[in-house]
Amino acid sequence: MGSSVKQLAVLGSTGSIGQQTLEVVRALPHRFHIVGLAAGKNIGLLAKQISEFKPRFVYFHDKETQAQLPNGEYELLPLEELARHPQVDTVVIATSGKAGLAPTLAAVKAGKRICLANKESLVMAGEIITSEAKLNAAQILPIDSEHSAIWQCLEGEAQPAAQLILTASGGPFHGYSLAQLSGVTAKQALKHPSWQMGRKVTIDSATLMNKGLEVIEAHWLFNMPFDNIKVLIHPQSIVHSMVEFIDGSIKAQLSYPDMRLPIQYALSYPERLANRQLPRLDWSRINSLTFEQPDLDTFPCPKLAIAAGKKGGTYPAVLCATDEVAVELFLSQRIRFTDIAKLVEQALEEHQVVAHPTLEEIMAADTWARERVMKLIPEDSPW
Amino acid sequence: MGSSVKQLAVLGSTGSIGQQTLEVVRALPHRFHIVGLAAGKNIGLLAKQISEFKPRFVYFHDKETQAQLPNGEYELLPLEELARHPQVDTVVIATSGKAGLAPTLAAVKAGKRICLANKESLVMAGEIITSEAKLNAAQILPIDSEHSAIWQCLEGEAQPAAQLILTASGGPFHGYSLAQLSGVTAKQALKHPSWQMGRKVTIDSATLMNKGLEVIEAHWLFNMPFDNIKVLIHPQSIVHSMVEFIDGSIKAQLSYPDMRLPIQYALSYPERLANRQLPRLDWSRINSLTFEQPDLDTFPCPKLAIAAGKKGGTYPAVLCATDEVAVELFLSQRIRFTDIAKLVEQALEEHQVVAHPTLEEIMAADTWARERVMKLIPEDSPW
Repeated sequence: MGSSVKQLAVLGSTGSIGQQTLEVVRALPHRFHIVGLAAGKNIGLLAKQISEFKPRFVYFHDKETQAQLPNGEYELLPLEELARHPQVDTVVIATSGKAGLAPTLAAVKAGKRICLANKESLVMAGEIITSEAKLNAAQILPIDSEHSAIWQCLEGEAQPAAQLILTASGGPFHGYSLAQLSGVTAKQALKHPSWQMGRKVTIDSATLMNKGLEVIEAHWLFNMPFDNIKVLIHPQSIVHSMVEFIDGSIKAQLSYPDMRLPIQYALSYPERLANRQLPRLDWSRINSLTFEQPDLDTFPCPKLAIAAGKKGGTYPAVLCATDEVAVELFLSQRIRFTDIAKLVEQALEEHQVVAHPTLEEIMAADTWARERVMKLIPEDSPW
Repeated sequence: MGSSVKQLAVLGSTGSIGQQTLEVVRALPHRFHIVGLAAGKNIGLLAKQISEFKPRFVYFHDKETQAQLPNGEYELLPLEELARHPQVDTVVIATSGKAGLAPTLAAVKAGKRICLANKESLVMAGEIITSEAKLNAAQILPIDSEHSAIWQCLEGEAQPAAQLILTASGGPFHGYSLAQLSGVTAKQALKHPSWQMGRKVTIDSATLMNKGLEVIEAHWLFNMPFDNIKVLIHPQSIVHSMVEFIDGSIKAQLSYPDMRLPIQYALSYPERLANRQLPRLDWSRINSLTFEQPDLDTFPCPKLAIAAGKKGGTYPAVLCATDEVAVELFLSQRIRFTDIAKLVEQALEEHQVVAHPTLEEIMAADTWARERVMKLIPEDSPW
């Protein structure tokens, strides 16, 4: 158990996960040191983070406004160089969307310890990333409440699990009918009952696409066949996931829905660290934990995702890309909530798959899908 | 991970845990071999078990009827000799009451792997047994759904737990008032809502004394201060216990209430074995898991037990002995249900404690307590 100070690069430091990562670092400054920060859009917040954490390396996506960053003793680096820099031992990939893919791969090839919050990397390129990780002895540690829960439950077990059970809050529209769903607004969809998250993942959580993507991630992270990964609705978001073993015993991980815990666990692993800022479950206030089967007729996204995951190749990239575009279209009120699944389904049907794709083929599928969705926007669209 | 055949001695083979241990062995004959069987009373069942499992060594408590055992190629051995026999590597202590103490200690001193279902050993002599286990490199593996759950949750963790949370079904009288409790019959008390167990432990479960004894066991098994062991009522008996870590993360172990799972886990550890006879949780039939704080005013036994455990010395032996006698008195309708706690409390109050007692001093406290209880039987006793 090393108690040395970990040297972190946080990619996506101004996003929801990035900010919470810095909160953990702030609470445990004797254990974590920020070597690099990278952000895409929020230059104001990045500037503040630079002043506070004094990183040696910085990346900012927008080259034009980059000059507005404060002066300091840091060096501007390209994103992938930051991800594989020798002074960095731990890379937190908190960028969202496919922007996370290239730095993840760079960090994997450099044999880093990667704390991965970016879903798209494993969903789009799970085969490439996991095989490169093996080749380069890189560690991929999930930052995601569900996968962190599974990982914690698997820790110390001598044998593979028999089944993974991913829990889902069910989102704000749990129990809605299809008819009700078609009329929901972006504002309603953005009100998640139990988690505070970014906009994209909040909508994915409302469609249950999030859970579908997590099933694909779990497949790659834990080398588990799709048929042995189940989804269970658990509205309280206290049980973050479960693992069933071959003897029928199940382990579950519980905590309040607070991303700082899975972030800290990935950062501190194999140690756990005391952190007064992390809430402890108050059992005098928890009366009941409920569980239900998901309604996959009303919320078809998990089925679409799992089917894409099973078929493999470039299908998951198309799934990710169409979902990302469709969510944007919904947020900008150009399509209905229920159109998200329809667009994804249609694009997947039309896609000409490439098996065992290269990164270039994955990116080409992504581009194809994004263009295709725009042409598929239904005519009865609200706008 | 050794896949060799484990050589078992099952002490208390005709009791509830003993029989279920043999069920596990029957289901996995390629992994477990019965070297020895020991029983106290049920000579008919022991005879059948001898015919089926063909042990090399047998112990039967009643020397007079012993001659009725079937002929066979086995040798009769004293109980403690069986527990430390070189041909035995794993000793299952499924005897109930203080009869488990001497063979447990014999097995511990012989450095065996001990699958311990007997509560009294650790409650009465936790200090002696755990220090002897350390000295002789004996492994003590709990066979108890709660302690097995905690053990499973601790597996692979690099650091001690912050808190252990023992769940309790609450028993058949959960929610009763003191007035209601004083009128309950033995028949009612023997109907446990979720577990099939022996008579003594079923009554202990109804008074919650069982949970108190388990807190003391957990203290010794996991080297955990009493103040960091909590009890939570969970009527469904699906979550068998939980562990909270220093980062606030909690792990729980879940399964249907079936003792064969913790028995098998202790036998097969560190491996898990597939066993079709063990039920898998059916999540389509589990809607809600509920949790409540225990009502320690109405059910004072856990408080008495924890206080006795904290004070240590011969107090826990007095607790065990008075409870055993009081449960017998209740089952034979000589005292009321609510008198059990009263008798235990009174005996504890009167006891002159011996700190860091020897085994002889523990046994002397046991004898004192048993005699004392008989004199304390309340005058308003039903009989």
